[in-house]
Amino acid sequence: MTDILHSYIGGRWVAPDDDGRPLSDAATGEEVARISDEALDYAAVLDHARAVGGPALRELTFRQRAAILKSLGKHLSARIPEFTEVSFHTGATRRDSAVDIDGGIGALFVYGSKGARELPDDTILRDGEFESLGKSGAFGVQHITTPLLGANVQINAFNFPVWGMLEKFAPAFLAGVPSIVKPASQTAYLTEKVVRDIVASGLVPEGALQLVCARPDGLLDLLTGQDLLSVTGSHTTATALRRHPVVASNAVRFTAEADSLNSSILGADVRRDSPEFDIFVRGLVTEMTQKTGQKCTAIRRAFVPRALLDDVEAAVAERLSKLTVGDPRDESVRVGPLVGQGQRDDVRDAARSLARAGRTVFGTIDTAPENFSAAADFVNGAYMSPVLLRFDDATAQEPHSIEAFGPVSSLLPYDGLDEALQLVARGEGSLAASIVTADPDIARKAVIAAAPWHGRLLVLDADNAGESTGHGAAVPHAVHGGPGRAGGGEELAGLRTLGHFMQRTAVQGGPAFLDTLGVA
Amino acid sequence: MTDILHSYIGGRWVAPDDDGRPLSDAATGEEVARISDEALDYAAVLDHARAVGGPALRELTFRQRAAILKSLGKHLSARIPEFTEVSFHTGATRRDSAVDIDGGIGALFVYGSKGARELPDDTILRDGEFESLGKSGAFGVQHITTPLLGANVQINAFNFPVWGMLEKFAPAFLAGVPSIVKPASQTAYLTEKVVRDIVASGLVPEGALQLVCARPDGLLDLLTGQDLLSVTGSHTTATALRRHPVVASNAVRFTAEADSLNSSILGADVRRDSPEFDIFVRGLVTEMTQKTGQKCTAIRRAFVPRALLDDVEAAVAERLSKLTVGDPRDESVRVGPLVGQGQRDDVRDAARSLARAGRTVFGTIDTAPENFSAAADFVNGAYMSPVLLRFDDATAQEPHSIEAFGPVSSLLPYDGLDEALQLVARGEGSLAASIVTADPDIARKAVIAAAPWHGRLLVLDADNAGESTGHGAAVPHAVHGGPGRAGGGEELAGLRTLGHFMQRTAVQGGPAFLDTLGVA
Repeated sequence: MTDILHSYIGGRWVAPDDDGRPLSDAATGEEVARISDEALDYAAVLDHARAVGGPALRELTFRQRAAILKSLGKHLSARIPEFTEVSFHTGATRRDSAVDIDGGIGALFVYGSKGARELPDDTILRDGEFESLGKSGAFGVQHITTPLLGANVQINAFNFPVWGMLEKFAPAFLAGVPSIVKPASQTAYLTEKVVRDIVASGLVPEGALQLVCARPDGLLDLLTGQDLLSVTGSHTTATALRRHPVVASNAVRFTAEADSLNSSILGADVRRDSPEFDIFVRGLVTEMTQKTGQKCTAIRRAFVPRALLDDVEAAVAERLSKLTVGDPRDESVRVGPLVGQGQRDDVRDAARSLARAGRTVFGTIDTAPENFSAAADFVNGAYMSPVLLRFDDATAQEPHSIEAFGPVSSLLPYDGLDEALQLVARGEGSLAASIVTADPDIARKAVIAAAPWHGRLLVLDADNAGESTGHGAAVPHAVHGGPGRAGGGEELAGLRTLGHFMQRTAVQGGPAFLDTLGVA
Repeated sequence: MTDILHSYIGGRWVAPDDDGRPLSDAATGEEVARISDEALDYAAVLDHARAVGGPALRELTFRQRAAILKSLGKHLSARIPEFTEVSFHTGATRRDSAVDIDGGIGALFVYGSKGARELPDDTILRDGEFESLGKSGAFGVQHITTPLLGANVQINAFNFPVWGMLEKFAPAFLAGVPSIVKPASQTAYLTEKVVRDIVASGLVPEGALQLVCARPDGLLDLLTGQDLLSVTGSHTTATALRRHPVVASNAVRFTAEADSLNSSILGADVRRDSPEFDIFVRGLVTEMTQKTGQKCTAIRRAFVPRALLDDVEAAVAERLSKLTVGDPRDESVRVGPLVGQGQRDDVRDAARSLARAGRTVFGTIDTAPENFSAAADFVNGAYMSPVLLRFDDATAQEPHSIEAFGPVSSLLPYDGLDEALQLVARGEGSLAASIVTADPDIARKAVIAAAPWHGRLLVLDADNAGESTGHGAAVPHAVHGGPGRAGGGEELAGLRTLGHFMQRTAVQGGPAFLDTLGVA
C-alpha cells in the first residue's frame, strides 16, 4: 500500500486513522497515494488559524508579508523539477506542469513584488482621502481596510493542484489572512508535496497555512462572517456551497470561479493568409490540448466568419493530427490523459451530447486516439482524443450550454459581428474570450459588447501575439473570474481584490485623529 | 375604501385587478391605502428594464447621468412638504421624516455631484493603468468597468420608504443600471407618492425606474448573472433571499444590509463632567428615539465603564423622561408610534426577553408610555415607551443576540477597553459603532480592533461632535453595511461601490488599442 496523505493542521503533520482510498496515476491507473475518507476536527483547525495564524500575520506589515512571498517563491522555484516529477501522475506533460507549478510560484512573485512596490510598511490600509462632512472641517470620514479575523478556506479543483492553492494563498497572505487548503482528492498528493516544502522552508508563520487531506464534512458549518470561502470547481459545486445554510446565514465572504463556455472570435477582417488566421488556429489548438483541455478558461466555442469555417476546420484538424496523445513522461507526447477515468467518462458523455447536436470533424470520442503513443496504456489510462465539433447552425442550444471539460471544442459560424456577440453572450457569463482581429474597430465593438459578460478579454493581432500570455492563462495582474455561469467571482487582478480578504470601514471623526490611521 | 397603490411598470401606471389589503396609519390604525395581494408579470417588468431602461441609460455618459440626479434632487426637494404630510402615516415625526426624505434626496445630490466631479464624460470606466505583460511592451492589460446589462432589484424595508429607494437608485443610475423597486408593504404608499413625482418630472429615462406595489412572487426566479438583488431587511429575510436557488445558481449580484446590534462605547477617560459624557448620553437617546428606534444602525448596546454606569443610566433616563410619545403630527411629540401593531408586538417580545435576562431601568414594555400625549390613541396606534435595559453582567448572551427593532437599548458595564472590544465583537458584525472619548490612544485602539467587525465607526469628542452627522446616519460618502450579522454588504461609500453595478474586465492586447478604451 502506498503512503496515505497527511494533513498539516494545528502546527504539525497529522496522519489519518483510516486506511483511506486510493488515488490513481492518470496514465497507468496505478495507485499513487491514498487519501483519508474521514473528516478532521475542523473546530481545532479553524481555531488554530484564528488564534495563531491570523495574529502572527497581522503583526507583520504588508511589506514584510510581501518579502516572505518572494522568498517563498525562490524557495519553491528550486524544487520545480521534483514537483514536475510528481505532477506526471496527474496526467500533465512537462509543459502542462509549467502552467500549474511555475504559474503558481509566479503568483507568489507577483504578489510579492506588487506588495513591496504598492503597499505601505503598515498593518492597515487607507482607502481614499479624508472627506469633510461639515462646514468647518472639524468632522469627516476616512475609509480604512483591515484584515478579516478569520480564515480563507480554499475548496480547490483537481486541475491545478499547485496554482489553485498558491493563487488564492498569495493575496490572502498579503492581506493578512490565514489559509486552510482543501485540495481536490484526485491530485492532492501534489498539493501535499508542495505544502511539505512550504512548511519545511520555515518562511511562513505558523498557522498561516493549513492543509486538509480529508473529507470536508462539517467544515463549512463552522464558518463565520470573518471567514472566507473561496471555491474553484463546477457550477453545481459552487452553487451548493453558496447555498450552504451557515455560509448564507453568516454572510461568509464567498467567491466562486466556475468552468465556463469561453469563446474565441475570429474577426471578419481576417483572410486565410492573414497572420491572424494562424494566431486564431494556434490559440484554439493550444486551449483544446493544454492540460488536455482541463482548464476552466479553455476555449469551448470558436466563432468563425461563415466563409472561413471550412478553412479553420481544416487548419485546426491538421494541427491536431500532428499531436501525439500518450503518457506525459514521454517527451514526444503533447497531450496527456485526463485526470482519471471517471472524469473521462463525464467528458465523453458531454462530447457525445454535443456530437449528436452537431458533428465531429476531428477525433473520436470513445476509442483510442488516432495518433496514440504505442507505449501508452489505453485500457488503464484516462486517454481521450482531442475532439473538434462543428455546428453549422450556431443557434443550437447545446454548444452554448454543455461543457465537456476536456480536449473538446466547437466551431460555430457567424454572419455578422452583432450575431457573433449575441452568440457569445449565450454562454451566460464566461471567464475569458479572445478576439483575433487586425481591425481596431471590430476589436473595440467586441470589447465593449462582451465586457459585461467576461472577467477577461484578449485582443490578439500579429503585433502582440508574440508576447501574448495566451487565452487560457490567468495572469496575477488581471481579473480571473467572470459573471453568471463563471461563478460571479473575482480573483487575482493584482491588488484590486485584496479587499476581498479585508473589511472596508468608514471611520468618522476629526481630521487630526483620522490622519493617524494608516499611511497616506 | 381608499385608493389601491399602482405599480409603475412597462412605462405606465398599472392598477391591480384585486382589491388588495389595507395599510394602516401607525398612529390611528385607520386605513391609509390598499396594496395588491397578487404578483405581476415580472418577465415583462424585467424585459422593460433590460430592453428599454438599460440601453437608454448606457447611451448617457456618467456626467449626463450625474446631471439628471442633481436635477431630480432639485425637483423632489420642492415637494418635501407634501412627502412629509404622507410620511406622518408611517409614524414618523417631522424630524424623523427628514432622515428619510431629505436624506434620500441628499443621496441624489451627493451622487450627482460626485459623478460630475469624479467621473468622465464617457460610458465606460478605466480601472487603473496599462500594465505590460511582456518584455517589449507590445502586450499588456488594461482593466475597464462596464455597466451590467440587467436590472437592480431592490427589496426594501418599511422604515425608510424614501431613503431606502433613493440610496440604492442613485448609484445604480449613475453606473448605468435600471432599478426595479419593491417597497415594504407597510409604508409603500409614501414610496409610490415619490415615484409618481419622479415619473412626472420626465427627468428619468423610461425604464430606468419601475415600481412594484404587489407581491414579489416569481420575481427572483427570473434573475440572471447580469442582474442585482439589493436587500435591506431582517437577517432572516436576507438569508432566505441569498439562498434562493435561482439567485445562487445564476450568481446574481447580491448585497444585503441587515439590522445589527450596533454599539456605542464610552471611553474610560471620560468623567461625569466631561463634555463627552453628555455627547454619549445624547447620542444614545437620539438613537433610541429617532424613527422610534426603527433604524438598522440604531445603538442597541451601550458600553460604559462600570464606575459610570449609574450616572449614565440616570442621565439617559432623565432625558428620556422629557420626551413626549404620541401622534407625530403633534409638534410637541418627539417619539412617534412604531410602524404598526404587528411590529410593536415583535418589539415587545424581544424587549421582554431582554428584560428577563437583565432589568428595565426606564420605560414600560406593555403599557402606555409614562409621558404619553393625551391626544394620542394608545388602543389603535402602535405606541411603545422607550425602554432602557441594564445588564450588570455584560457577558450575558441576550444583549448580544436579541434585537428589539424599536426604542430599546441596553446598558452594559465594562472593566477595561479590551473587554469592551471583545463584547462589541459578540454582535458578530454590525453596521456602525461609536467610540466617545477625548483620548486618541483609546480611539485608535478601539478603531483598529473594531474595524473588521464594522462598516462604519464614529469617533466622537467635544471638538467634532457639533458637526457630527450622528451615529445612525448612513451618509452617502461612507460605507453603509457591515460583515456577518449586518448582512455582509457594502452600499454607498461614495463611488467606491459603483463597481457593484458593473463588471470589471481585464482587457489584454496591445497598448495603442487599449489606450482607446475609456478616458485615462
